[in-house]
Amino acid sequence: MAQQQEGEVAVIFASRRNTADPAGYAAAAEAMAALAACQPGYRGMESVRDAQGAGITISYWADEAAARAWRDQPDHAAIRERGRTRWYDSYSVTVCTVARRYGWQRA
Amino acid sequence: MAQQQEGEVAVIFASRRNTADPAGYAAAAEAMAALAACQPGYRGMESVRDAQGAGITISYWADEAAARAWRDQPDHAAIRERGRTRWYDSYSVTVCTVARRYGWQRA
Repeated sequence: MAQQQEGEVAVIFASRRNTADPAGYAAAAEAMAALAACQPGYRGMESVRDAQGAGITISYWADEAAARAWRDQPDHAAIRERGRTRWYDSYSVTVCTVARRYGWQRA
Repeated sequence: MAQQQEGEVAVIFASRRNTADPAGYAAAAEAMAALAACQPGYRGMESVRDAQGAGITISYWADEAAARAWRDQPDHAAIRERGRTRWYDSYSVTVCTVARRYGWQRA
C-alpha cells in the first residue's frame, strides 16, 4: 500500500458477514477492491476478515472529495445495496482524516 | 463499542503476525485490550485477525492526548517491545481524526 500522507482520508468499514452466498460475496469483494484501485485519488486499502465473519476494510483517499466520489460510484452503490439485502448482518463506516503514520518491519 | 464522535482519534494498527508463541501472543492481546479499556478517554476498539496472521485493530480515543497517553502507558510500551522481538513481522500505525460515523444493522 502507498504510504499515507497527512490530510488523506481513511474510510473504516467494519462489518459482520452472515453465512449466505460465500462465492458471490468473494467475487464482489474482489471486484470492488479492483474497482476502488482505479478511482481518482485512491491511496490504498487494508482488509482483514476472520473465519467467524468479522471484517475490517480501510480504504485511503487523497481527500474528502475522492472518498465521497467512491461512495457514490454507481457500481459500488449497487454492490452496497446487495450487501444489505444478502451478505451483511451489520456494518459501520467511520470516516477519518489521517494525522500521521509510521511503520515497523523486522530487519 | 461506543458510538464515535466527531473529533475523536482513531488509531489504526495493521500488523502481520509470525507463527511464534501463539499462546503468549493471545494472552498479551487479551491483557492489552482489557488495559486499554481502563484508560482515560478510551472510546472503544474493533479488532480482526485472519488465519494467515494479518490483523487490524482500531482503538478510539476521546482526543489526541488520550491516544498519546495510551501509546506511552508503561505496560503497553513493554508489550510493544515484546511484539517487535517476538510476535510481529511488520506493522503500521495510522493516527486519524474521526470526521463522522454511521452504521447499518439488519432489521
